[in-house]
Amino acid sequence: MAEDLYGIRDGEVAIELPDAFDAGLYFIGRIHTPWKTRDECPKNARESEAVCTIEVDPRYAGALKGVETCSHLLVLYWMDRARRDLVLQSPRHYQEHRGTFALRSPVRPNPIAASVVRLVKADGPRLSVVGLDCLDGTPLLDLKPYFASTDAVPDAVVGWHTNR
Amino acid sequence: MAEDLYGIRDGEVAIELPDAFDAGLYFIGRIHTPWKTRDECPKNARESEAVCTIEVDPRYAGALKGVETCSHLLVLYWMDRARRDLVLQSPRHYQEHRGTFALRSPVRPNPIAASVVRLVKADGPRLSVVGLDCLDGTPLLDLKPYFASTDAVPDAVVGWHTNR
Repeated sequence: MAEDLYGIRDGEVAIELPDAFDAGLYFIGRIHTPWKTRDECPKNARESEAVCTIEVDPRYAGALKGVETCSHLLVLYWMDRARRDLVLQSPRHYQEHRGTFALRSPVRPNPIAASVVRLVKADGPRLSVVGLDCLDGTPLLDLKPYFASTDAVPDAVVGWHTNR
Repeated sequence: MAEDLYGIRDGEVAIELPDAFDAGLYFIGRIHTPWKTRDECPKNARESEAVCTIEVDPRYAGALKGVETCSHLLVLYWMDRARRDLVLQSPRHYQEHRGTFALRSPVRPNPIAASVVRLVKADGPRLSVVGLDCLDGTPLLDLKPYFASTDAVPDAVVGWHTNR
């Protein structure tokens, strides 16, 4: 079986990406975690109780006012090591090919991750949180308050995952 | 009170944004909704049972394999009409100023919205969903399966909102 860490495995399908980007992102901070390589990262964020640190750039620190009142945050970050051109993927721990939009893999046209974290401490531009699984140094894109009323759907089902 | 629809209100604070972007995004489709102006948009997505349509570009349609088995999706989209330089904001329906990262306002350094939707129908590259509140024609950035195990926190609290 073809098994290239950053390459394509059997059955995976790559597309040609557009020639130009449509919009631009600012990195607004960095995420500090205990994990320096992909193999060290937990397979999903609920596997680890590690406290990670979100460090917001001083330029944006004023935007944190009120964040300390939130029990949970939605964190968007940029998975900057991932290729962007696969539409069908075979993650190593699954047998079948799945579409990129049916997976939480970092490999996707816009490698934006969305993770729900529990806020442990807010200390100026530094937030201590539990619930991340990314590499140390990952660029931060956004922080949002997590509203249970709109963001929590406890009975949601991912059929391919439940039935595999 | 200063009240400029796309401008700054009293007490709001703007920063100078960086000279250059750090990363680029592809628009991978469009979202079709019944709302043509900001005033028509529901104040939050739970206010409306309107069925909206997510149209994925043909280039990425192969990435939808397996999405039809999901009851709910996390949709990331680009709020392309919003200014990006406010760190303190006074949304019209709140009295106090809040930091951008304590709000779900479209105004933020990276105007990426994250909405949980219920999947009603998957028809090739067109998904019918309930739970969006954005303008018609909004650019799509990403679709992800919603996993209750990691994404649902029913007891999460946004203190400033609960106690206001």
